[in-house]
Amino acid sequence: MKRDNDFVKAKIISIGDELLIGQVVNTNAAWLGNILTINGMEVISTLTIGDGEQDILEALDSCSDVDIIVMTGGLGPTADDITKPTLCKYFNTELEFCQDAYDNVMSIFTKRGYQMTERNRGQAYIPKSCTYIPNRYGTAPCMWFEKGKSVYISMPGVPFEMKNVFEQEILPMLLSHFKITPYINKVVMTTGVGESFLADKIKDWEDALPDFLSLAYLPQYGMVRLRLEGRHPDRDFLQHTIDERIEQLKDLIGEYIFGYDEKPLAEVVFEKLKAAGATMASAESCTGGSIAKMITAIPGSSEVFKGTVVSYATEVKENVLGVSHDDVVKYTVVSQQVAEQMAMGVKALLKTDYAVATTGVAGPGGGTEENPVGTVWIAVAGPAGLVSKRYNFGNSRENNIERAAITAFEMLRRTIK
Amino acid sequence: MKRDNDFVKAKIISIGDELLIGQVVNTNAAWLGNILTINGMEVISTLTIGDGEQDILEALDSCSDVDIIVMTGGLGPTADDITKPTLCKYFNTELEFCQDAYDNVMSIFTKRGYQMTERNRGQAYIPKSCTYIPNRYGTAPCMWFEKGKSVYISMPGVPFEMKNVFEQEILPMLLSHFKITPYINKVVMTTGVGESFLADKIKDWEDALPDFLSLAYLPQYGMVRLRLEGRHPDRDFLQHTIDERIEQLKDLIGEYIFGYDEKPLAEVVFEKLKAAGATMASAESCTGGSIAKMITAIPGSSEVFKGTVVSYATEVKENVLGVSHDDVVKYTVVSQQVAEQMAMGVKALLKTDYAVATTGVAGPGGGTEENPVGTVWIAVAGPAGLVSKRYNFGNSRENNIERAAITAFEMLRRTIK
Repeated sequence: MKRDNDFVKAKIISIGDELLIGQVVNTNAAWLGNILTINGMEVISTLTIGDGEQDILEALDSCSDVDIIVMTGGLGPTADDITKPTLCKYFNTELEFCQDAYDNVMSIFTKRGYQMTERNRGQAYIPKSCTYIPNRYGTAPCMWFEKGKSVYISMPGVPFEMKNVFEQEILPMLLSHFKITPYINKVVMTTGVGESFLADKIKDWEDALPDFLSLAYLPQYGMVRLRLEGRHPDRDFLQHTIDERIEQLKDLIGEYIFGYDEKPLAEVVFEKLKAAGATMASAESCTGGSIAKMITAIPGSSEVFKGTVVSYATEVKENVLGVSHDDVVKYTVVSQQVAEQMAMGVKALLKTDYAVATTGVAGPGGGTEENPVGTVWIAVAGPAGLVSKRYNFGNSRENNIERAAITAFEMLRRTIK
Repeated sequence: MKRDNDFVKAKIISIGDELLIGQVVNTNAAWLGNILTINGMEVISTLTIGDGEQDILEALDSCSDVDIIVMTGGLGPTADDITKPTLCKYFNTELEFCQDAYDNVMSIFTKRGYQMTERNRGQAYIPKSCTYIPNRYGTAPCMWFEKGKSVYISMPGVPFEMKNVFEQEILPMLLSHFKITPYINKVVMTTGVGESFLADKIKDWEDALPDFLSLAYLPQYGMVRLRLEGRHPDRDFLQHTIDERIEQLKDLIGEYIFGYDEKPLAEVVFEKLKAAGATMASAESCTGGSIAKMITAIPGSSEVFKGTVVSYATEVKENVLGVSHDDVVKYTVVSQQVAEQMAMGVKALLKTDYAVATTGVAGPGGGTEENPVGTVWIAVAGPAGLVSKRYNFGNSRENNIERAAITAFEMLRRTIK
């Protein structure tokens, strides 16, 4: 992204030893990065530090050049949470009792039917010089400080609490406090083509982008995502320019595009099925329920998804899905015959229009010379008959499960009329 | 964690606009944080920055006080990847052709059946002053620089490539380059008790910990995890002290402990079932395959897990699982009767010793006055009969699915003899 000094800049500081040592993945930083960006603020960096006074003070010292500093973590009731006293030190203020914060802690304890302890009473003390922001989802308070031209925000690290408070309380305050240049991005999702090949194919188009737009490539799990983004004072002009360039891009690589804007492939399939008034089911062996999980993550998925049989045991493939015992013996469970019979079996059992089936060797054990770890047969049964294909996704169990599930959706997507 | 200047210190720098804007969650930093920590290196901070020369140079400038700087990202073949030329600038060197790197890119392209482009040939150029570290999992090279007393490592951002190269090549190099003080941690996983209550209950124990040990609390999804950790030159003494303190802790809060060391609850259940020579199945409505996914994530789970029926549609509950149509009409699908019949139905169909079933309103739609969003009935059928319970997990669909699945495993765990 091109940077401009007129843009409102933000840094994210995540506080917590558990993040540094990798016990917890920092999803808060990603969530905040996204919501700040789409609301026009430019995220310059994300810094994760431990629960140490010196670390927090140094991190704050390095932030005077940005407009917004968003901190999460270190606000719990236990001894390892030291953000609040450290903020007092940094802003040269002291803790004082806050009745609103106390009432909030009290009401949460009453709702949960717990007894309030002295520790939790301590959560009602907040720094004198800050603006108190209520957190209706937990006992830790949120705080807003101003120093120079910068705004400092401190929120709890519990994702559910942080997200709700940020969206409902803090974001509106930021948007009214700063004058923000509009930002828009559009993500184009492609499959079936490599990053280098794609880059060569769209080189002239990329070189001709106006100065205020930029392009990034993100390869992942057999997909490449392209993100076109920019900032411009005139939002309509920015939107129009992006739309126009995306239309040009479609002419160049339309055959590889399966969706836009991070919409999961499962959701693309869901919408295609819904539009067709059709239903689906899955019969899963090696994917172990991942296809079901992906489709049921979508609100309203019950309109098209009727169910799944996870047939991990061979006897379940035979007894519930009607796979032929003789074919299992003759071709093994990881075979085209078994995948196709699973797909047809679940389609008949759950009375759907479409069904996908997976059978493979996820690993680490179970590989044979004929079917090494990573081998997966995927079958799709639809109104027009059967499609099936053999894949090898490599040695990682987690990878195999994920890629097999995504590939099953891609095969289904291509099948739906 | 207490800090000591004798410990080997590391900083992680993650490079990529996609991380800053939250398009990708930074799982690399967590993975690296964990592997560095358990191998005795102390991770001081994790910094995420964009693909900008100035940002990378400033980040490197801020690292002279640590021993190890681990960088990921920005090594791809496209125009937005600028880590390599920036490293040349920082280390005052230039790119030169590396035959080994070229052969590696070539062999990967040959294996995948792709044609090598000029762009990919560029990936064979590496900075003159670095030690080249081969990456057998992708086309981007890895690099090792030394400056002052510090080691700088640059790796690709693709998690699969990064992890393999780090474990196989870089970690052994670090362990032989530095003299590292042993580190050990032990995580105690509790459920059914709040963070504040727990802290009060173990206060005396915590206060009596020796100086080289520290304790952290991590609440998440109805669990609280306690992490006891420390560094000491004498590894045996450290291990012995930690074991001893954990034994004391068991006496204080044993009833709440369900496992250790981040072992997922599903794995605790898997091991209990395996030890009992018993099998399980699940019948899932609102959890949509999540229980199946959690148990099948465990290598070898086929020993105890036979399968699942995801009965999203009511007709599947009736036709496949044998739930009484009259009871559905009389009690609704989110009821004790339906949950229990689902559990018994799948237990009989898949011929297992145990079965869990979930039926609920994940949301956002579908709530009623009687069964608002978040209502879930969970039933467990075992050799000794049925157990069932009604829960409300709140308004977030993702949360509801996750917590219902975890609670189902916890109910099953308590049932297994």
